[in-house]
Amino acid sequence: MVETNELQFVKSRLDFWDKLNQNEIDLLLNNISLVTYRKDFNLHSADSECLGVLVIKSGGLRVYILSEDGREVTLYRLVAGDVCVLSASCVLNSITFDVHIDAEVDTDTYLINIGTFSKLSRQNVYVENFAYKNTIERFSDVMWAIEQILFMSIDKRLAIFLIDEMSKTSSPELHITQEQIAKYIGSAREVVSRMLKVFQSDGILEQTRGSIHILNKEKLRSLI
Amino acid sequence: MVETNELQFVKSRLDFWDKLNQNEIDLLLNNISLVTYRKDFNLHSADSECLGVLVIKSGGLRVYILSEDGREVTLYRLVAGDVCVLSASCVLNSITFDVHIDAEVDTDTYLINIGTFSKLSRQNVYVENFAYKNTIERFSDVMWAIEQILFMSIDKRLAIFLIDEMSKTSSPELHITQEQIAKYIGSAREVVSRMLKVFQSDGILEQTRGSIHILNKEKLRSLI
Repeated sequence: MVETNELQFVKSRLDFWDKLNQNEIDLLLNNISLVTYRKDFNLHSADSECLGVLVIKSGGLRVYILSEDGREVTLYRLVAGDVCVLSASCVLNSITFDVHIDAEVDTDTYLINIGTFSKLSRQNVYVENFAYKNTIERFSDVMWAIEQILFMSIDKRLAIFLIDEMSKTSSPELHITQEQIAKYIGSAREVVSRMLKVFQSDGILEQTRGSIHILNKEKLRSLI
Repeated sequence: MVETNELQFVKSRLDFWDKLNQNEIDLLLNNISLVTYRKDFNLHSADSECLGVLVIKSGGLRVYILSEDGREVTLYRLVAGDVCVLSASCVLNSITFDVHIDAEVDTDTYLINIGTFSKLSRQNVYVENFAYKNTIERFSDVMWAIEQILFMSIDKRLAIFLIDEMSKTSSPELHITQEQIAKYIGSAREVVSRMLKVFQSDGILEQTRGSIHILNKEKLRSLI
């Protein structure tokens, strides 16, 4: 059960709320809890049990696929205000693939447990509709990521990623490893390492242990 | 307007039919037509107008993405009985990516025009729901294709493709070019060419102009 002022936030993110009857609202209210996941915690994987629907209060999640030999490809990232439905994918029969979901930073999220969500989506077509719609928006995100990975050259992808990170942190100093960058842009660490060296020799950035300092933002932007 | 005996087929593919009222059924019946697309015809692209929903009677469609420099990556293929909703994606606001759709062979399909589909999906949540559900099933297909392309070695992908083609045509003789194979498995022609040569020298197949003869199905299967 969440506080009244927090309830407004949750309601505003679930656009099926107006289509619920009083019983359904009561059921939902009694089954929302606030959960905190620590940085790097794996919330959801192919083997884990189905969690439920998440409404992110603060922090962020990363959704990715994982190959048998441990390669990761990031599909999209979710931030405060976003709703995560793939963590309840067991309820949606049309979804037959598995993703992994990690907390990127310490993350507070409202959790609608899977039993409640399953019941609501079975008895109220608007809830089911919401889940589908949300999933399709993520489908669009995935297509964007895939087109980048398949069609865009690595220098462009890396440049876009670095610029995004700079705007996110409002700083030219990025605390991120080559390994992490490789995961985000769906490439190999060796490839990222090689390209960062090229950027460095072009005077675009400077690398120190565990961080990257952007020196020439304009030149970086011109690569895109 | 379609014939009564054909109507049964269309109804069986659209599982929202029982949720339509008489007006909606009349509207739908007056706006379904049988259309034939010739082999290689491009039904849908980023620039084309939105066609509507297709119920495939016979033949097959290929759905793919296209890079700026003309590279194609096949996402999935649809056959008789399948319903194609992405050709009506303009109606679904959550879909913000573009695909291309070609007829793989001469294809007969029932077409629900876009105006009708748009109207029905706005006024009947079950129609909207159907469209979402169908799109999510295709999302699962796309994820499967993407995981293959990103994670699976080229020899495995090629072996799977050749075995699929053999079962489809029930013949060890495949009439297909290296260019076409490359499109289907999301690779480059040169890579396919190289791998086919390896398969040939391993005694798995024999290549002649425009066709591939599978000699050792067991050995091919052992690659998967």
